[in-house]
Amino acid sequence: MLQKYPNTGRDSSADLPVWKYLQTLHERHAPNTDGSLASYIPELAAVDPDRFGIAIVTTDGFSYEVGDSRVHFTIQSISKAIIYGLALEDHGPESVLARIGVEPSGDAFNSITFDERNNRPFNPMVNAGAIAASALIKGADHAERYARILDIFRKFTGRRLDLDEAVYRSESLTGNRNRAIAYLALNSGMITGNVDEHLDLYFRQCSLLVTTHDLALIGATLANGGVNPVTGERALDGRNVRCLLSVMNSCGMYDYAGGWQFDIGLPAKSGVGGGITAVLPGQLGIGVFSPRLDEVGNSARGVQVCQDISARFRLHLFEDRGKGLLPFRRIYRSDEVRSKRVRRQEEARKLGQFGHRILVYELQAELDFIEAERISRRLIQDRESTTYFVLDLTRVLRIGAIAFDMLNTARDTLTAAGRTFAIVSVSPEVRAAFAQEVHFAAVDVALEYFENLLLTDIGVTGSDFAVPIETFDLLGQMPAEMVATLRRYLERRTFAEGARLVAQNSEALELFFLTRGRVDVRVRVSAGQSHRVGTIDAGNMFGELALLGNAPRTADVVAATEGEVYVLGAGGIVLLRAEQPAVMAALLLAVAGSLADRLRRANEEIRVLSR
Amino acid sequence: MLQKYPNTGRDSSADLPVWKYLQTLHERHAPNTDGSLASYIPELAAVDPDRFGIAIVTTDGFSYEVGDSRVHFTIQSISKAIIYGLALEDHGPESVLARIGVEPSGDAFNSITFDERNNRPFNPMVNAGAIAASALIKGADHAERYARILDIFRKFTGRRLDLDEAVYRSESLTGNRNRAIAYLALNSGMITGNVDEHLDLYFRQCSLLVTTHDLALIGATLANGGVNPVTGERALDGRNVRCLLSVMNSCGMYDYAGGWQFDIGLPAKSGVGGGITAVLPGQLGIGVFSPRLDEVGNSARGVQVCQDISARFRLHLFEDRGKGLLPFRRIYRSDEVRSKRVRRQEEARKLGQFGHRILVYELQAELDFIEAERISRRLIQDRESTTYFVLDLTRVLRIGAIAFDMLNTARDTLTAAGRTFAIVSVSPEVRAAFAQEVHFAAVDVALEYFENLLLTDIGVTGSDFAVPIETFDLLGQMPAEMVATLRRYLERRTFAEGARLVAQNSEALELFFLTRGRVDVRVRVSAGQSHRVGTIDAGNMFGELALLGNAPRTADVVAATEGEVYVLGAGGIVLLRAEQPAVMAALLLAVAGSLADRLRRANEEIRVLSR
Repeated sequence: MLQKYPNTGRDSSADLPVWKYLQTLHERHAPNTDGSLASYIPELAAVDPDRFGIAIVTTDGFSYEVGDSRVHFTIQSISKAIIYGLALEDHGPESVLARIGVEPSGDAFNSITFDERNNRPFNPMVNAGAIAASALIKGADHAERYARILDIFRKFTGRRLDLDEAVYRSESLTGNRNRAIAYLALNSGMITGNVDEHLDLYFRQCSLLVTTHDLALIGATLANGGVNPVTGERALDGRNVRCLLSVMNSCGMYDYAGGWQFDIGLPAKSGVGGGITAVLPGQLGIGVFSPRLDEVGNSARGVQVCQDISARFRLHLFEDRGKGLLPFRRIYRSDEVRSKRVRRQEEARKLGQFGHRILVYELQAELDFIEAERISRRLIQDRESTTYFVLDLTRVLRIGAIAFDMLNTARDTLTAAGRTFAIVSVSPEVRAAFAQEVHFAAVDVALEYFENLLLTDIGVTGSDFAVPIETFDLLGQMPAEMVATLRRYLERRTFAEGARLVAQNSEALELFFLTRGRVDVRVRVSAGQSHRVGTIDAGNMFGELALLGNAPRTADVVAATEGEVYVLGAGGIVLLRAEQPAVMAALLLAVAGSLADRLRRANEEIRVLSR
Repeated sequence: MLQKYPNTGRDSSADLPVWKYLQTLHERHAPNTDGSLASYIPELAAVDPDRFGIAIVTTDGFSYEVGDSRVHFTIQSISKAIIYGLALEDHGPESVLARIGVEPSGDAFNSITFDERNNRPFNPMVNAGAIAASALIKGADHAERYARILDIFRKFTGRRLDLDEAVYRSESLTGNRNRAIAYLALNSGMITGNVDEHLDLYFRQCSLLVTTHDLALIGATLANGGVNPVTGERALDGRNVRCLLSVMNSCGMYDYAGGWQFDIGLPAKSGVGGGITAVLPGQLGIGVFSPRLDEVGNSARGVQVCQDISARFRLHLFEDRGKGLLPFRRIYRSDEVRSKRVRRQEEARKLGQFGHRILVYELQAELDFIEAERISRRLIQDRESTTYFVLDLTRVLRIGAIAFDMLNTARDTLTAAGRTFAIVSVSPEVRAAFAQEVHFAAVDVALEYFENLLLTDIGVTGSDFAVPIETFDLLGQMPAEMVATLRRYLERRTFAEGARLVAQNSEALELFFLTRGRVDVRVRVSAGQSHRVGTIDAGNMFGELALLGNAPRTADVVAATEGEVYVLGAGGIVLLRAEQPAVMAALLLAVAGSLADRLRRANEEIRVLSR
């Protein structure tokens, strides 16, 4: 059932608000015939001018589509973005920047002007820059270079694109202005090599056939840091995505680049085939196709549709989106939430008194600069009141390198001042980044570790010694002769480390008095897997259910050390009840008192966890 | 102690990683003497060229400062951003856009060229556009207009700025090129009114004295949606902030606007006084001051420092920041987490069986388009398995209008299909936006409400009738003659709605058998305030602590309805123990069994809440 609307494919449901809106938008703009077809080659002048598709693909790969979203048309100048991306992959941003600028020119896209001061085309979104980018594509020969171009388009769209042969022939036949640009660039040393081959690649990439859905997926791939969210394949390195989005933002929409930023506010690229690709980083890509162009060469209806989508869904980059989420999910101290280790009363009391020196930050979301800044500030703020810091990173979705650096800097400051850190995470990356810290898989274990350190600090000795039954905290209110009576019904056993004393789901027949060693309470979650829900020290009882009815055991109890236990067996319980009702009543009172105490603590923990 | 590093003021600590980095950066760039002073007026040529300040102010108002961060200098062209903002406030974006374009011109900032096609200056960041913006500032006369200009600077910086009289006189004396621009604009009808007055306002605003900290705070105010994060005062409407940031992004850095976007990627504005303000929306503002300028007129060292800060802290707008946080904090069904109402066994069993039809989404973070898109998709996905939806919005920091709209659309679809929603929030705004839904202050109460509806759906009658002690679930294993014996020790009482049956912190002396009515368990959190932690139906006991020792009561128990209770008082407990030890043991066994059961449920709840 959860797979009814999978995260991939064309399964937009008519019940989804976004799809409903796009459908309404499509209907509203269907009669819109603003603009006119590109006419510089007959093939573009001959397309059906009423074709109209809209698509949105999210960065989790979900696709919304309405209208002619699967009709094919030529990609034209939108290919400039992809080819620039490939040039960046082939040479790196510094080297490409030396060959192609990033400034809006203020001139038309097919202008024969160059950035004379730097001897390079103004930017890769004008023809001169795109031809220079094509010249940078690596490969042994034309065939290999073209194959590499097709391959990066495949990574972006998830499929191999076909060439519109007629458009390609026309572009090539009529492309003399572009030839002039290329030869001028060659003459000035801006490009090198076989100009005809570069131009052929340029004409071909403009003539590739795409759908509106392809354009949205290209946008979603850029929004997703360069990884195609449907196929999972990386199309561009993240740093190159950043460079490409910057140039699309400043130069992507011809002479409407500033107005587009002002009105719509998304990095975008358009083509004279009538397509537009727009990107909302982290969130989605938009594709629109409508072939009639406005006076600067953008799809007239496409621009209006993008305006409506951006306004309706408030997608503008500079829309006020608030200050972002605080990185803190919960902050608490160990006097509020203790580890699951059941300790003797003296230790428990001391932890109630001094546990505030252990501080747990449950962190969340994604940690980048501003989150690390907040956390660092909070760490420094809390240092006077805290000796032991637990950073729980299990709910952090991503930690940027800068966040690692900053947290390590703050950590160094605090460890130099005598504070100690524990990191809770199972991620090898996180553990490697905090190599100096102790690591735990769960907060509970980190808490127990620091509780032990804290108890040592304040001179409370550990519990790894034998505790005679007479001195059990729980039996403290029982007269000595009653305890002596009780002992006669108990059977002494020793156990080795790893022994299973209680088996989950078995019948609860025996009550245990742990007189030496330590046992873990483990719940089996699946075949062969269990997790520790608590630890019990010598001086405590377990298995109280045996007294209370016939419910099955809810957990395994496994020896964490070798040790010794006194057992009140099923027969003993029957005998004790019959022969010594007063001792049985006192024992029940002790057990009920213990349960009430644990329930109180559990309710307090629920209160803290529910914050 | 928590106030040691307050969120305001100049209290940067040397221990904070950001401050440490800025200090190192300042030291590294201190010997950097790239560029040369502006020389078109003697005052600028006479400033100390080695002055060097860096400041960052976060959107929670925390300030990092190093170097000459409190030295005064003239704001120069950075004022263009503020004045454009004021023009937007005075006339709205559409009207201002008709008068001043938003396209980068490709020409120098003091160019006497205009966007001829639209008869307007190219953008507000060139002199022509800034003079046109000055002409738009409202006010009865020069004095009032200037006062309004000073006032918006005060809102941005939190203080009244002083005029550098010498710079102002020089600017005014030598500003003939600007006069020519203004008269050309007047001649073409781009501006109207008193040109000398407009020019005087223009010269004055350029000559205002600011500090590096002021520039960072201006940036932080823009980053904060237009609200000064230190004073809390709104300087610009959020929509105008969006417009201003768009123009700063496309045109703010003279002829380096594209390169700045590529390299640094933050909306910014520079001035020939040597200042730069940069903005990372939602997060922070950066101010840098270093008077030597590069060849396009930006602070040479300032640009390099911004490059280093952006690269080091990965602040570029198009840095890959992942997909954002999922809006779901936790999702669970009512068979996993039940309300705190203690129900009779039959009802509890039914809820265990059918509670999965109640689904709770704990939402978090900020809800905008993409979050609402995810939630809508999930709602539609869960509809087959769910009858009752609880949307817990208490941990949501902000809900954008678009998120409200989309959630309401999805809600309409589901309610039309027979599903029911409850909203958990105490925000009046949220409650108003979901006016058709039932509202609760806590998930627990919503759960109880839907549990009751669910029990009615499946034909389980309510518990609001009298339950004789003999039929109490808890006493089910006690022989009838023992229950009869127990009854002789009980005292019957009736109570009115609102009566307090148990007082928090009082000595626990009495055990209660609730035979009619319903009581709430309430914990006092502060003077006069308490919150409900549970509800107990007729047929259940409470006050078990009375049997178990001398701990004080942990909560109030207050009658939710009128009702009847049987009480085992302190004297009764003593007598019962002495006279009827077997009955006492059986009662203890029942109480301990109940406690063990509640503890098991509490531990299960902790497991779910710890996810």
